Amino acid sequence: MKMPTLVIYDITDDDLRLKVAKFLRSKGLKRIQKSAFIGPLTSSERVNLVAGLRRLVKGHDKVNIQIYPLTEASYSRRVMIGVQMDYDEEEEVIT
Amino acid sequence: MKMPTLVIYDITDDDLRLKVAKFLRSKGLKRIQKSAFIGPLTSSERVNLVAGLRRLVKGHDKVNIQIYPLTEASYSRRVMIGVQMDYDEEEEVIT
Repeated sequence: MKMPTLVIYDITDDDLRLKVAKFLRSKGLKRIQKSAFIGPLTSSERVNLVAGLRRLVKGHDKVNIQIYPLTEASYSRRVMIGVQMDYDEEEEVIT
Repeated sequence: MKMPTLVIYDITDDDLRLKVAKFLRSKGLKRIQKSAFIGPLTSSERVNLVAGLRRLVKGHDKVNIQIYPLTEASYSRRVMIGVQMDYDEEEEVIT
């Protein structure tokens, strides 16, 4: 059963931050903020995601990534204030 | 009943971002990343929080704030990679 999985991160290194963003996108997650992605994952997909992220950031300091598996109820009760910005374009430019 | 409430934000304006961080801290939330706070809130405290945030950012563009009420299960199943950085000090310096 897929659960919405929220990933938020604080990564000082620009290259690493871009790599993490690309990795999350490659796993089917969608960017919802500059440092936040979300997407539906099964529990084994989530385990793989965490393992992949650990590999990516290995040896780097000043990294903090948090992964929250949400219930559908939590997800549907989220509140958004302001505008949904478009980050895909921004990343393409940085790449 | 209090539920862990996660608030993540993307705010371009430096002053406004600092105001939002101070507001979230004044409501008892704890900074867990540069742009993420969490804390236990009742449903009416959450309604007040959202109203206060809407007031704060009124008239500003390039603002995106998302509020997620989490279950205790979701919260306890979160995974953290890397180190928990200390943001309190950083904010004091900026102030």
